Amino acid sequence: MSNAAAYAMPAADGSFEKVTIERRELGPDDVLIDIKYAGICHSDIHTARDEWGGAKYPCVPGHEIAGIVAAVGSAVRKYQVGDRVGVGCLVDSCGTCAPCLAGDEQYCANGATWTYNTPVAESVQPGGYTMGGYATQIVVTESFVVAIPEGIGLDVAAPLLCAGITLYSPLRHWNAGPGKKVAIIGMGGLGHVGVKIAAALGAEVTVLSQSLRKRDDGLRMGAHHYYATSDKDTFRQLRNSFDLIINTVSANLPIDDYLRLLALDGTLVILGLPDQPMSVPGHRLTSLRRSLAGSTIGGIAQTQEMLNFCAANGIGAEIEVISADEIDSAYDRVVASDVQYRFVIDAASI
Amino acid sequence: MSNAAAYAMPAADGSFEKVTIERRELGPDDVLIDIKYAGICHSDIHTARDEWGGAKYPCVPGHEIAGIVAAVGSAVRKYQVGDRVGVGCLVDSCGTCAPCLAGDEQYCANGATWTYNTPVAESVQPGGYTMGGYATQIVVTESFVVAIPEGIGLDVAAPLLCAGITLYSPLRHWNAGPGKKVAIIGMGGLGHVGVKIAAALGAEVTVLSQSLRKRDDGLRMGAHHYYATSDKDTFRQLRNSFDLIINTVSANLPIDDYLRLLALDGTLVILGLPDQPMSVPGHRLTSLRRSLAGSTIGGIAQTQEMLNFCAANGIGAEIEVISADEIDSAYDRVVASDVQYRFVIDAASI
Repeated sequence: MSNAAAYAMPAADGSFEKVTIERRELGPDDVLIDIKYAGICHSDIHTARDEWGGAKYPCVPGHEIAGIVAAVGSAVRKYQVGDRVGVGCLVDSCGTCAPCLAGDEQYCANGATWTYNTPVAESVQPGGYTMGGYATQIVVTESFVVAIPEGIGLDVAAPLLCAGITLYSPLRHWNAGPGKKVAIIGMGGLGHVGVKIAAALGAEVTVLSQSLRKRDDGLRMGAHHYYATSDKDTFRQLRNSFDLIINTVSANLPIDDYLRLLALDGTLVILGLPDQPMSVPGHRLTSLRRSLAGSTIGGIAQTQEMLNFCAANGIGAEIEVISADEIDSAYDRVVASDVQYRFVIDAASI
Repeated sequence: MSNAAAYAMPAADGSFEKVTIERRELGPDDVLIDIKYAGICHSDIHTARDEWGGAKYPCVPGHEIAGIVAAVGSAVRKYQVGDRVGVGCLVDSCGTCAPCLAGDEQYCANGATWTYNTPVAESVQPGGYTMGGYATQIVVTESFVVAIPEGIGLDVAAPLLCAGITLYSPLRHWNAGPGKKVAIIGMGGLGHVGVKIAAALGAEVTVLSQSLRKRDDGLRMGAHHYYATSDKDTFRQLRNSFDLIINTVSANLPIDDYLRLLALDGTLVILGLPDQPMSVPGHRLTSLRRSLAGSTIGGIAQTQEMLNFCAANGIGAEIEVISADEIDSAYDRVVASDVQYRFVIDAASI
C-alpha cells in the first residue's frame, strides 16, 4: 500500500479538508498514476453533499482525472512510467456481461465500480469504498486507464474524462455529423464540450441556453446558432427542426416544449437526472416518430476514441484552474452556474 | 360523379344509417374501387363518436379497405379493372416535403389527407371532407392505392391496411428480427397482427396481455412467451429483457413499469394515444440508454412491402365478418375488447 494526500469531505454538511488516504498495493495489472489535474463535476457535489443519498465519509470525489504514470504492475503492457493517462467515472466492471462485452462497461449488468463512493473490497481500496481524483495518486487497473494523446494539455483534458465522453457517446450513438441538425440544451460544463464535439463531427449545431449571455462563447466554440429559451418565440421558430437534441441540464425542464423541436425521427437525449419524472404526451412522439432517450458517459474504448478525436481536433474543455483549498467555494460557484466552463483542481496544490 | 351506398353516423350520439354519398368523377390518376371489405378500427369509433373532437357529420369511417378495381383514369398505369387492391389511412399528401420524399407520407409536413374526416375540396370529395370505406365504392388517386397479392383473402387483408402497417412499420424501423427480443403489449386488433409479423420477421416474441385468456391464440400466432400484466411477478421476471416493446394499448399504462423491461439500448414504442401524458423518470432512460418513442402507421411504399410480406408468410388478420347493420353493436364490442380480433364489414351488405 501507498499513501496519497487527498481532499476529502468529512460529512454531508462539512467542508473539504486535507487528509492522507491509502491506495492499494500495485497488483500485476495495476497502474499507479501521479494525478496532475482533477475536474470538478456536478456529480461530485451531489455525492459530497449526500444529495443523492448513500454517500460514504470521508468522501474523496473526482472522476475527471489526468496524470502521469508513476509505476506499473508486472503484467501491464499498454502503459509505462511517464505516460500521459486519464481515468474517468469507471475503475472496474465485471467484464463478462453483455454490456461489458459490447464495450459499454458503464451499463455493466453486475454493477460497474465507479471511481468514487462505490463499495469494494479492502484489497481494492483501503477503507472499503472507492476514493476519487481529488488526490495526489490513484491506483487503477490497466484496462480502465486511457491514454491522453500529445497535443492536448492535461489540464484541459481532465474534464473530457466525464464531460467529454458524456457528450461524445450520445453524439456518436445517434449519428451526429454532416447534414444533421443538433441542438445542445445548456451551455455549462457538459454543454460547452458538446458544442465543440458536435461541431467537429460536422453537425449543424444550435445552442439552446436560458439567455444569450454566453452567445459569443458558443459561436466561438463552433455553434452555428444560439437561442435563448427564456424567449418563447424560440420554441415557435424552431419547431420540428432538430435530428438530435442533447439535454445537459438536470433541472425539471418542460420537456414537451423541447420534444416539439424534434424533426421526423428526431431524438431528445437526456444526460442529467431531473428530480421529477418528465411529462410526455403520447402524440408528441407518435406524430413524427420522435424518441426520448437517455445516456450515461460511455465505455472505455469509446473514451479513448473520444480523447483521440479531441486531440486531433484541438478540443479541450474551457477551464478555470483552482487550488485544492478553493474546492468549497468552487462548489458554490458551480451550483450558481458561475464557472466558465469547468473547474479543474491543480493536484500540485493538494 | 358517381353514387355509392354507405353507412354513416349522423351525429356523435347517433347510430349508423344507410345513406347515399357521392364520389368524385374519375380523374386521370384516379382508381374507382368496388369495396369488398372494410375493417373496423378503434379510430373509427373515436371519430364517429367525436371522442377526439372535430368530427364532421354525416361521418363515414373506414380506413381498412380491400376491394376490386372497377375503373381507372386515363393516366393510371399500375392498376387495371379487376385488380385486387387496398386503401389504408391515407388518400393523399403533398408529395414534396421531406417526409413525403422519404416515403413517410403519414408524417407529411403539410398535412396528409386522411381517408375520412379530413377537409378537402368539393372536387376531391363532394361534401368537402373525406369519407371512408364503410361504402360500396371509393375513388382514390393511384399512388395511394396498394396491390393486395394473390394468396391472401380480401377479408383478412382489409385490417392489414391499418393494423398491419401500424405494427409492421415500427417493427421494421426498430429492426425486429433474428436475435431480437420483442414484446407486444396488448393482444387485440393491433397486437395480434404484431405477434404474427414479429414472429415472421424472426424475432423472439413475448405477449404482455392483461390476462392469460388469449394465451393459446397468442402462441398459435407465433408468440414464444405469454405473460399476464395483472401478475406483478411478470414485471420482476422480465426486467431488462427486451430490445423492443411495442405498446398497442391506448389506456394510461404505468409506462415506467414497462420501461424497466427494456434491455440496454431497448426502445418502447407507443402506437396509441393515452389521454394522460406519460410519467417518465429520467434515470429509467439513462441507466441503460433506453428510448421511449412513438409511431404512426407507415408510408405507402412500406404498406405495399407489408402486404407482400404478409402474403409471402401467410399472414392475415383474424376476423369476425359482420354485415353493415351490425356496426353499432360491433362498436360496443370493440370498446369492451370483445372481438377476436378484428371486425370486418362485408360490403355486400351495405
